[in-house]
Amino acid sequence: MFVYCINQLYSYRMVLSRPNYRFLFLLICTLIFLTINLQAQNLYAPYRQSWLKKAEDLKPTLTETIKHPVGIVKIEKDAAAFQGWKAVKSGGIEQLYNSSFNKKNSGIVVDFGEHLTGYCTFTLKTRRSDMDAPLRLKLTFGEVPSEIATPFDPYPGHLSRAWLQDETVTVSVLPATITIPRRLSFRYVKIEWLGSSSGFEFGFADIQFKASTSVTVTPPALAAGTPQIIKDIDRIGLTTLKECMQTVYEDGPKRDRRLWIGDTYLESLANLYSFKNNNLTKRCLYLLAGLANDDGILNANAFEEPVPHAQKSRLLDYCFLYNVALKEYVAATGDTQTGLDLWPVAKKQLDIAKKYTGEDGMMDYIKAGKEWWVFFDWKDGLDKQAPLQGITIYTLNQTYALAKLLGKESEVAEIPALAKKLKDAAYKNLYDKKSGMFVSGADKQVSYGGQAWMVLAGVGSKAEAQKALRSLPTLPNAVHPGAPYMYHYYVAALLACDLKAEAKEALTSYWGGMVAKGADTFWEVYDPTDDFRSPYNFFPVNSYCHAWSCTPVYFIRKYPEVFQR
Amino acid sequence: MFVYCINQLYSYRMVLSRPNYRFLFLLICTLIFLTINLQAQNLYAPYRQSWLKKAEDLKPTLTETIKHPVGIVKIEKDAAAFQGWKAVKSGGIEQLYNSSFNKKNSGIVVDFGEHLTGYCTFTLKTRRSDMDAPLRLKLTFGEVPSEIATPFDPYPGHLSRAWLQDETVTVSVLPATITIPRRLSFRYVKIEWLGSSSGFEFGFADIQFKASTSVTVTPPALAAGTPQIIKDIDRIGLTTLKECMQTVYEDGPKRDRRLWIGDTYLESLANLYSFKNNNLTKRCLYLLAGLANDDGILNANAFEEPVPHAQKSRLLDYCFLYNVALKEYVAATGDTQTGLDLWPVAKKQLDIAKKYTGEDGMMDYIKAGKEWWVFFDWKDGLDKQAPLQGITIYTLNQTYALAKLLGKESEVAEIPALAKKLKDAAYKNLYDKKSGMFVSGADKQVSYGGQAWMVLAGVGSKAEAQKALRSLPTLPNAVHPGAPYMYHYYVAALLACDLKAEAKEALTSYWGGMVAKGADTFWEVYDPTDDFRSPYNFFPVNSYCHAWSCTPVYFIRKYPEVFQR
Repeated sequence: MFVYCINQLYSYRMVLSRPNYRFLFLLICTLIFLTINLQAQNLYAPYRQSWLKKAEDLKPTLTETIKHPVGIVKIEKDAAAFQGWKAVKSGGIEQLYNSSFNKKNSGIVVDFGEHLTGYCTFTLKTRRSDMDAPLRLKLTFGEVPSEIATPFDPYPGHLSRAWLQDETVTVSVLPATITIPRRLSFRYVKIEWLGSSSGFEFGFADIQFKASTSVTVTPPALAAGTPQIIKDIDRIGLTTLKECMQTVYEDGPKRDRRLWIGDTYLESLANLYSFKNNNLTKRCLYLLAGLANDDGILNANAFEEPVPHAQKSRLLDYCFLYNVALKEYVAATGDTQTGLDLWPVAKKQLDIAKKYTGEDGMMDYIKAGKEWWVFFDWKDGLDKQAPLQGITIYTLNQTYALAKLLGKESEVAEIPALAKKLKDAAYKNLYDKKSGMFVSGADKQVSYGGQAWMVLAGVGSKAEAQKALRSLPTLPNAVHPGAPYMYHYYVAALLACDLKAEAKEALTSYWGGMVAKGADTFWEVYDPTDDFRSPYNFFPVNSYCHAWSCTPVYFIRKYPEVFQR
Repeated sequence: MFVYCINQLYSYRMVLSRPNYRFLFLLICTLIFLTINLQAQNLYAPYRQSWLKKAEDLKPTLTETIKHPVGIVKIEKDAAAFQGWKAVKSGGIEQLYNSSFNKKNSGIVVDFGEHLTGYCTFTLKTRRSDMDAPLRLKLTFGEVPSEIATPFDPYPGHLSRAWLQDETVTVSVLPATITIPRRLSFRYVKIEWLGSSSGFEFGFADIQFKASTSVTVTPPALAAGTPQIIKDIDRIGLTTLKECMQTVYEDGPKRDRRLWIGDTYLESLANLYSFKNNNLTKRCLYLLAGLANDDGILNANAFEEPVPHAQKSRLLDYCFLYNVALKEYVAATGDTQTGLDLWPVAKKQLDIAKKYTGEDGMMDYIKAGKEWWVFFDWKDGLDKQAPLQGITIYTLNQTYALAKLLGKESEVAEIPALAKKLKDAAYKNLYDKKSGMFVSGADKQVSYGGQAWMVLAGVGSKAEAQKALRSLPTLPNAVHPGAPYMYHYYVAALLACDLKAEAKEALTSYWGGMVAKGADTFWEVYDPTDDFRSPYNFFPVNSYCHAWSCTPVYFIRKYPEVFQR
């Protein structure tokens, strides 16, 4: 077409006889061609700016509260405690405020009594004689006691060493009020003396924390008679969610401090039944859409600073979960306008399903695994075939439900047949009638993830689903969830096939395990058999307040008849 | 008297018959009594505020200049170099600006090409992919190459570890422009990578330094034909002085960053013959007076922040040198108003001489040494008897000269006789006719310090003085100066008894030694036989730009006929 246009234009010889005009025409034609082409490549170009503006307009004002320490603790070794360390109360904060700070009390640990996210400010004063040299302090902030007790260097982790929250401060003049520049997430802060003149004494006059969250409401109490462990799990889940709800749904306020689709989906579910800040969900959905790739495929995560931008990250299952999150939002709020705005995005993500579905109705998980990050869980060795087949079916169904809410069925009329094709293929290829389990991959791996996603996808009968899920705990080789994220889908699957008692038991034993180990917030990674599990080769860099672990709030409050009695 | 007053007042029975009135009278009398008493104890109470205000009004505005690096250097081992390390040019700054910064080029050393004092600001930018984790850097600022190459921890020094200029920075969002909060003093900065995500690359877009000084003029060039080594010494001395001239005469811009009387005296001498910022001298004299102890005795040093205040520090020889500095200031400027304002302070310091002078005309150096910090030099084992006797005589003479400038001889009519008494006693007790040397203490120690102060005090004839000073270098057991501070008085003594060639030789060989070893500024401590000498048990905490080492500027420019040919 481009060449044709040029030729046509060339025929106007009168105009184009002079070389200058000819060049100009060529230039204009090229620009028009490029513009049309780029538009085609930038699928959301007409909407992108308005989506980002809507996200910006919905940015919440953070509620900031000044918090004070509740006392001093000693971090003591205890083989029975989580990761071998426990915090033991050792006195009031006046221990710090009424003493000079020096080599002798270096390492004192201040306890704020709860998990907090925000900014730490402390005031130092001279206590005796004149300050005749600068002083040097190190503050180490920890979400859990082990972060305070474990040396960070030499750092063996795979992620940036800078996630660890130890900050060194030089102070030249007293009195001084100092705010650590970086945002922190912690309960405990260890204060170490690294140097000062022996000729004078100084001390802490105050240490305080400006804690922030975008949560503004207190959810109702659970039903009278709710078991204490459920109350505890709910309370800790609420704190976890509250801490992660900043100006976006963050995955973890210590790490990674950003918007991920997978976390957002689970947070938005929990939020629906607790803090009901649906505008935050709306903001995140618009933000993710506005930061999608030019080809329409979403990025898995996004940052707010210095300006909203995505990390180029194609994570297959998260693209699908965007659709599910959007559907849940529209269904819960009736906000069809947002649904209609973002419908093109949801529709576009289905291309992934279409691209990898073979003639046999099976997702080509090997090809997809090469071309995408297929996540599902922090679990080495988890075979992704069954989970991928399951989430694809689930997403097709949820997206069709969304279409129905929006009156858009005609645009995706092919979905029901496609979903059925994948479901039938799944039953045929992944259900092992003999064992009654769903299997995955060449080695026919049996995993919690595989059963969970097959059941959520509705593959097999209710009885078959129940049998598979019930059998899991009896199979020593079944691949367990690596993190609460996958555990969520496992509990959701139990509820989906009406295994209420088992759902309650699973939730109580898994999240209750964290409660028993002293969690203030729920952890990114929790393996009941190994406190030190870390996907990053260093457990202190794990996040100990992690969005995807907050979903007991959703289960407990959505299904009171299951959990609140 | 107090009891008498009360009794008298009690006799006015009509007034005092009522208990309320009686109480009121008692209260008023007590207040009057206390006020009179406190006035007596607070000698300068009527003037203190006006002195401090004058000092404040004279506070200079700093000249701030943005400086850029001149290149990259490698700090290499070299047994022949000062402290075993030398900086070798290894490329332009574009090496830093055009590369990603990571583990591989961690430890890169940026050279600013000159000694600077002020604030460091750098800008980091993303170079590839998205920043998905905070990053962590350590910047180590050094005045000399060894500070860059020597590990600071475990820190063996006696002074605060915080004097060492290594700062760790966590950066959460890029691009970022970061200013290290503390003021720095350096030529070289080593930048170490302590952590960042492997998923992205970042680099330095800029690093700059806001250098400050209160110097505003460029002194005239030295005479044509001045030897190169003298030119070099003068140039480095001027830089040293310029760097120390901030809002007060600081002793060292890296350490101690404050106003000391001893340094101020020498700086003000050098300033008289170079930058001629006499208002800074005036400011410092008023500040020190305003911050004197209530009994009228000066404190040896003072801080400007958070509000001007003295460190309680009674350093005997520095109290005396205040008088000398004031006399030099008045003599050079003719500013008798300041002289008259501060005359009570100078007069008061003479009490020290009177208190410790025995019947025999000898200062009781043992008692004084117990009750005061008697300094003179950073030199272990230096016997203080002869230096103390000498500086006392010198101070009496200089103070009497000041009195004459101010027309105040009548107030100190006893000085000439007292000075003579001390001088005669010194000659009798400290001059060893046999050896022709001045001796000090029970062990009859022969030291550079002892000879210098005896000669400056005018003890002995010119011939005897010359003989003593000439003999010094031939005596293997003579106690050498520990630092340039004492070397100043040694050179001054050589000039005082007309040993011009020897003065030039001493200055050229001592300060020239630092030049030969690559000094950008003159060092606090310099022992030609031991590069690692430190009064603080760790040579990197020595100051390498130190006020008291700048005095070649004074000698070279005051005595052109001696040094500039």
